[in-house]
Amino acid sequence: MNIILLSGGSGKRLWPLSNDIRSKQFIKIFRTDDGYESMVQRVYRQIKSVDPNATVTIATSKAQVSAIHNQLGEDVGVSVEPCRRDTFPAIALATAYLHDVMGVPEDESVVVCPVDPYVGDDYFEAIKRLCEQASTGEANLVLMGIEPTYPSEKYGYIIPASGAEIAEVNSFKEKPDAKTAEEYIAKGALWNGGVFAYKLSYVLNKAHELIGFTDYQDLFNRYDTLEKISFDYAVVEKEPKIQVMRFSGEWKDLGTWNTLTEAMDEPTIGEAVLNDNCENVHVLNELNVPVICMGLHDVVVSASPEGILVSDKEQSSYIKPYVDKIDQQVMFAEKSWGSFRVLDVEENSLTIKVTLNPGHGMYYHSHMRRDEIWNVIEGEGIVTLDGKKREVGVGDIIEMKAGTRHTVTAVTELKIIEVQLGSEISVHDKQKFGRE
Amino acid sequence: MNIILLSGGSGKRLWPLSNDIRSKQFIKIFRTDDGYESMVQRVYRQIKSVDPNATVTIATSKAQVSAIHNQLGEDVGVSVEPCRRDTFPAIALATAYLHDVMGVPEDESVVVCPVDPYVGDDYFEAIKRLCEQASTGEANLVLMGIEPTYPSEKYGYIIPASGAEIAEVNSFKEKPDAKTAEEYIAKGALWNGGVFAYKLSYVLNKAHELIGFTDYQDLFNRYDTLEKISFDYAVVEKEPKIQVMRFSGEWKDLGTWNTLTEAMDEPTIGEAVLNDNCENVHVLNELNVPVICMGLHDVVVSASPEGILVSDKEQSSYIKPYVDKIDQQVMFAEKSWGSFRVLDVEENSLTIKVTLNPGHGMYYHSHMRRDEIWNVIEGEGIVTLDGKKREVGVGDIIEMKAGTRHTVTAVTELKIIEVQLGSEISVHDKQKFGRE
Repeated sequence: MNIILLSGGSGKRLWPLSNDIRSKQFIKIFRTDDGYESMVQRVYRQIKSVDPNATVTIATSKAQVSAIHNQLGEDVGVSVEPCRRDTFPAIALATAYLHDVMGVPEDESVVVCPVDPYVGDDYFEAIKRLCEQASTGEANLVLMGIEPTYPSEKYGYIIPASGAEIAEVNSFKEKPDAKTAEEYIAKGALWNGGVFAYKLSYVLNKAHELIGFTDYQDLFNRYDTLEKISFDYAVVEKEPKIQVMRFSGEWKDLGTWNTLTEAMDEPTIGEAVLNDNCENVHVLNELNVPVICMGLHDVVVSASPEGILVSDKEQSSYIKPYVDKIDQQVMFAEKSWGSFRVLDVEENSLTIKVTLNPGHGMYYHSHMRRDEIWNVIEGEGIVTLDGKKREVGVGDIIEMKAGTRHTVTAVTELKIIEVQLGSEISVHDKQKFGRE
Repeated sequence: MNIILLSGGSGKRLWPLSNDIRSKQFIKIFRTDDGYESMVQRVYRQIKSVDPNATVTIATSKAQVSAIHNQLGEDVGVSVEPCRRDTFPAIALATAYLHDVMGVPEDESVVVCPVDPYVGDDYFEAIKRLCEQASTGEANLVLMGIEPTYPSEKYGYIIPASGAEIAEVNSFKEKPDAKTAEEYIAKGALWNGGVFAYKLSYVLNKAHELIGFTDYQDLFNRYDTLEKISFDYAVVEKEPKIQVMRFSGEWKDLGTWNTLTEAMDEPTIGEAVLNDNCENVHVLNELNVPVICMGLHDVVVSASPEGILVSDKEQSSYIKPYVDKIDQQVMFAEKSWGSFRVLDVEENSLTIKVTLNPGHGMYYHSHMRRDEIWNVIEGEGIVTLDGKKREVGVGDIIEMKAGTRHTVTAVTELKIIEVQLGSEISVHDKQKFGRE
């Protein structure tokens, strides 16, 4: 099975765990035997358990590449969108990537799926069948239709021609109001979960026809010139040879704190104490200090290096405008080489903790307007300063005046307290020199 | 006026702003023109505005001395109890301190008052009159009796002989149940706020009689051998020549989050956003990241480097056992020279931010089992390492191997990132050598 997972942009509706650079699919909230996994890790694990040979490609923005490799390792394919251009260009690019970069033959089928549904393994069994159905060539597109459990106003609807497991599509309906949704459901309508399968050749041909490009690299290079247009609008709604396959298993969209906490196995993640008078309270605490909750009802508490949310669960879906007002610098980020966390902010200094995974290193870089000091607090590594390499370990101090090219590669897990000094400290003050 | 302020021990009922080393009277929650002041700062300011020449002595434990000088400056008198021995030894020691150290004559009067009442200036006007009344010698002890506003079960009661402003005391009553409190109030009873005035000679004589000591220093040296006994039990309840002066102004005891938040001028302190659906919500946020509250009712949120409390206001008075269960190292402390804050905790390292006030320095000290690195991020100072002095400024790095005697004195406000390295990092690993 070839699967393209669409990994959407940043979102603030799960602040403070999601923000401009950290998307909800990377939040680790699902209990595993030895810790927690994120939505993207859960989905990836589920796909691999249903089909160990599945080729998984994640279509996403540059900002997410580090987090993806950090959470899924280096084996997963990533189709990087140079900028955001809606779903048709994104799917065209990922399909070209599969064909031109990964060498998947044109007559193989591929299935496109959002990266963040909360589902059981049966969902991916269904996706496998969807892919197989696309291979038969009976239709150009085969959609997954989810059997509605209530007249939701949040989803689009698919009206099938019959109640068969695989049916022709009669029509598509935009997100309706609840009353209209009830009417659709009475007619046998299914939710459109944004999942569909096709043969590579189908989308490649459509893309060549609508965009005009030679190959993946050409499409990639011209990506910022493409028109923003959705796959639904550009392709799905115009395709006469289209089928829907019904799915009746569990399917949830964990887009708000209210729905997300429903999927938690335990009421708390991280250090937290709830007294007996708490009812329907969930705590997600990423800080290394405790949260105590007393006498709360229907409340979610979430604490991260970015901030603290305390919200009535129903109200939590209205958080976005309040988060938009906050002008908070990024306090924590996952990188391909590990992570960093801001420890202290002063007008002319910034202190951060850098953690590098074994074998990983930063880009070789320099800063124009700040000096840096590294205090190695754990592990061993190799530091390069202006071309000179040096082994470092606990207690070593590395001073880098502005302009010094520098990098460090971890031999074992390496932890560094980095002190940045200067009057214009900015993440944009960085000159990269490629891997040293 | 001579006034002894009793500054009680640590408390956990206002966690995470109070803890083992930080008492509630030092939390800065009262709005002033240019920031916030603490209970002890507010009371000190009020005393000085009512009587600019007042001699203020704070009777307290060693643990609070740094915070007192940090918040009130060096002019305030401090009578340090070498250990906790209840109120009679504490008041005897402070009285001996006033007489033997500060040179206050025996026939002057002194008033004893808790450090943390939430009151108006009229309270301190009344205290001044209390002091004057004690000077007349009509009685050996003159108590303040607060006119009850409701039948409280939290206070002891004083039954006066008449309704006069100054009356003889008929009897004392322990904390009653609400029904008994109503009966007391019907008889004209007053709350016992723990405020009383006497001539120095009176308590000095009682102390010599009950304890037997030569002078302040002798009493101080033998303090740990003294019996724990309250001033009420040892003195007040046995004294026949005793009067009560009534006070009818505002008087509050801000001992729980519920009562404390009632005294706040604004619903939030620190970075906080409340949506319109919040009602009766207070936020006290000491962290440098925002708190967002959505749709909460009757809730207090308090965040500090020690942890986060989210509590129904009524429930907040039951917090203590939950805080007792937490084994959290101290993350922030005020010192006589400034403050420190823990930024990062690892198994074999600790990173803290040290802020020194101009002109102040640490004790000259060394550690047996840890190395330290100082990264100066702001200001100028003088570092002493094994007797050698050196000027330091922004960007300087000072390395101290275990055993190195070291200290630093701030010339301007000095901020340092201190990295501690070792396998047995402990606050007890410290050898002091006195001021260098």
